[in-house]
Amino acid sequence: MGDWNTAGAQITRRRRATFAAGKGARLLPLNGSSAAAAHIPVAAEYGASQGRGKREHSLEIIRRTAKIEKKKRRNDFTEQLSCHRTQESLLSSGSGYKNYRGVINWCVVMLVLSNARLFLENLLRYGVLADPTQVIPLFLKDPYSWPAMCLLIVSNVFILVALYTERQLSKGSFSELVGFLLHCINMAVMLTFPAAVVLLVPSVTPVGGAVVLGTYTILLLKLYSYKDVNLWCREMSTQKAKKLARSLSYIYYFTFAPTLCYELNFPRSPNIRMSFMFRRLFEMLFFTQLLVGLTQQWMIPVIQSSMKPLEDMDLSRMTERLLRLAVPNHLLWLLFFYWFFHSSLNFTAELLRFGDRQFYKDWWNSETVTYFWQNWNIPVHKWCIRHFYKPLLRKGFSKMVSQSAVFFLSAFFHEYLVSVPLRMFRLWAFMGMMAQLPLAWFVGRFLRGNYGNAAVWLSLIIGQPIAVLMYVHDYYVLNYGQETN
Amino acid sequence: MGDWNTAGAQITRRRRATFAAGKGARLLPLNGSSAAAAHIPVAAEYGASQGRGKREHSLEIIRRTAKIEKKKRRNDFTEQLSCHRTQESLLSSGSGYKNYRGVINWCVVMLVLSNARLFLENLLRYGVLADPTQVIPLFLKDPYSWPAMCLLIVSNVFILVALYTERQLSKGSFSELVGFLLHCINMAVMLTFPAAVVLLVPSVTPVGGAVVLGTYTILLLKLYSYKDVNLWCREMSTQKAKKLARSLSYIYYFTFAPTLCYELNFPRSPNIRMSFMFRRLFEMLFFTQLLVGLTQQWMIPVIQSSMKPLEDMDLSRMTERLLRLAVPNHLLWLLFFYWFFHSSLNFTAELLRFGDRQFYKDWWNSETVTYFWQNWNIPVHKWCIRHFYKPLLRKGFSKMVSQSAVFFLSAFFHEYLVSVPLRMFRLWAFMGMMAQLPLAWFVGRFLRGNYGNAAVWLSLIIGQPIAVLMYVHDYYVLNYGQETN
Repeated sequence: MGDWNTAGAQITRRRRATFAAGKGARLLPLNGSSAAAAHIPVAAEYGASQGRGKREHSLEIIRRTAKIEKKKRRNDFTEQLSCHRTQESLLSSGSGYKNYRGVINWCVVMLVLSNARLFLENLLRYGVLADPTQVIPLFLKDPYSWPAMCLLIVSNVFILVALYTERQLSKGSFSELVGFLLHCINMAVMLTFPAAVVLLVPSVTPVGGAVVLGTYTILLLKLYSYKDVNLWCREMSTQKAKKLARSLSYIYYFTFAPTLCYELNFPRSPNIRMSFMFRRLFEMLFFTQLLVGLTQQWMIPVIQSSMKPLEDMDLSRMTERLLRLAVPNHLLWLLFFYWFFHSSLNFTAELLRFGDRQFYKDWWNSETVTYFWQNWNIPVHKWCIRHFYKPLLRKGFSKMVSQSAVFFLSAFFHEYLVSVPLRMFRLWAFMGMMAQLPLAWFVGRFLRGNYGNAAVWLSLIIGQPIAVLMYVHDYYVLNYGQETN
Repeated sequence: MGDWNTAGAQITRRRRATFAAGKGARLLPLNGSSAAAAHIPVAAEYGASQGRGKREHSLEIIRRTAKIEKKKRRNDFTEQLSCHRTQESLLSSGSGYKNYRGVINWCVVMLVLSNARLFLENLLRYGVLADPTQVIPLFLKDPYSWPAMCLLIVSNVFILVALYTERQLSKGSFSELVGFLLHCINMAVMLTFPAAVVLLVPSVTPVGGAVVLGTYTILLLKLYSYKDVNLWCREMSTQKAKKLARSLSYIYYFTFAPTLCYELNFPRSPNIRMSFMFRRLFEMLFFTQLLVGLTQQWMIPVIQSSMKPLEDMDLSRMTERLLRLAVPNHLLWLLFFYWFFHSSLNFTAELLRFGDRQFYKDWWNSETVTYFWQNWNIPVHKWCIRHFYKPLLRKGFSKMVSQSAVFFLSAFFHEYLVSVPLRMFRLWAFMGMMAQLPLAWFVGRFLRGNYGNAAVWLSLIIGQPIAVLMYVHDYYVLNYGQETN
């Protein structure tokens, strides 16, 4: 704009000059505004003409100024008359233009607006469905029987057995073989006992069962690490480590610490940052509400409306419902990720002054499926590498076989944590995890950079709701299907 | 992973070494794999011990290798035992991490999926509505009367009047005043005559009327520029320009050239690039189909379903419909932009070997509303600056007043091009354009960078469908409202 303005002002001057010239004052365009325009060249010439007389001097100035004005006027008019020049459009490949920064903002605005629309549509169609009191029956079926809570209390027994075994081993009271067998029995019971209780006691709800089995699985992995590290220490005969490693308080610190890998000296932060801890606590509480509210308001209506197309095997409607479910499911998963891996684990770590906060890496930039699985859940990944993948390599298995074994183990636990609480064995979760292997091969082989990243996102956004729909459908048919028939 | 592998292989070696040491072979860990591990230091030492006897030499090697092995084993075990180190989570502000490149891909994947879902839902609900034959009745009401076409042919008269006036002026047959009056009359008739025909002849359809008035408006702006430039040339007394400027072929070249600003020597491209031209032609045809199809399939159903909430003044449902309309409306506008400003104008320019292809600049990066209006439609912007804004400045008006006058002129033509073809004067388009002034002030004053850019996008995405809904609602009530009552 600035450019145009000065040009405009110059044209004004010129026009007036022309008008004056028309009246016969051809050589005297030195009226008000033109004098101002010619001011700078006049000043520059002043020094050169200082020696001559005053009158001659001013005539000289007038003559020179007129010459400059005339030349300028011609240039400006030429500019005014020809306002086009040969050039390509920006979107033509020939222009070499590449700045589409604004398109990113466009994406964000479109996403926010689309979802605002969906949110409003949902509210208009279903009203407010979110109700925090509905959470209680998910955990409690019979208010006088709390089987899940009992199981959580019982879990202490397994910690004590592991500690006892290691104490005996360190004193030499048990041989390595006896200790190994005791650990194996302890862990086998940890895996089967809660599963059996969840399957056989009818007052355990699916959510209660999932929480119990999740806790037991985490504890199982922790005690496995505890056993391994103590074994390595004995092999190294590190005398100084012996005492701390078998203390009751230290194994309980490890139980609550946000890691699955035991070690003798966890890095500790120097103090508890209160503001950091309370911010994480606030996030935990807020996101819990949000997760529950969004599930009730958004997930459940979509899932319920998907039952009919799924039963009828109506493919196009099934696809439409799947895509409709994908968005809330994915947003809930993202919220869950932040809630668990950032807020909750950081809160626990801050409270326990646990120094290592690497609970996730930059999985959002994953360009391969493998990178995603290696970086989204660092505690489990670290455990798998340290206590499963590397031991397998040491035993002489190939990288390929060991990697597949890790996915197999992960698939087993995914299935275990879903099938047992639902009391329904369908292998969808197992197959979902095992499908990661060919997917990883495909993405690694054929897609690079942003395409690989988009493929990883797509598999996350689409893959999960398929499994969710499968389980919900089967659970619905199994539990409510007979009633309607 | 590679890092972990070598570490794993070293641990295997160490374990075996430890096992051997336990059996009393403490100083002889030089079995198979350990020899391989010690290979490099051995080779390095080889030169130094070449002079001694063979037996002494190998003993030396064994001793040194054992030392190296022992030190390495201790380091590796320490690494194995302590797998944590103090560090922040990536999402904590303390980590200083900033790479969220993958989030851009996430946005794209989410947008594609959301719209795929909407597309499928639309198809399932309405079936295929797109039908190219329905386009014809938009232009033709009565197959034996083609009023729009007649008006387009008549427009040649105004070109010839302008050319005749300029020829007389250049010969001095007309005085400047007579010429000015003739131009004024010519242009006043150009503005009012087609509007009167569209309003009074019932067989003109709204689409036909809009095309005619659009063409007349473009021609009006072109002839205004023609008049101005010829006047400037006379003022400059540029003799050589006289002949070309008043030729019939040159004024017709200007009429069809993709610019509104006349000049004596348009920059010309050296030749017609056939492949470029045919690509643009293909885009023109393809996007025409797409625009018509999307309007029929997506816009019209949403608009029809918005009539009820609009009549009832149901605010939450109106908002929901507005947001629902915003997405297809915005996509259609983007398609229209590409179709008109890139494909069509470039096709015309290539065909006419018109060199200046700057029909738009990078408005998608606009951080202020002003920047958007200055860059999205360069032909109109150039005309406004050259023939309206700068002349106003020359006449001594302030920048503020001149800018407001440009918006006022633009608002007038927006209203003219919508109200007359719809035969309905509601001022929505006028107010929409005038609302840009306070909006520009607000965005320029309070929002910067990406926030400003997002605000510009938001005003585009939300602003347009509000105006569209207003007009469609009023048109519907006026034309079909009585029938239903």
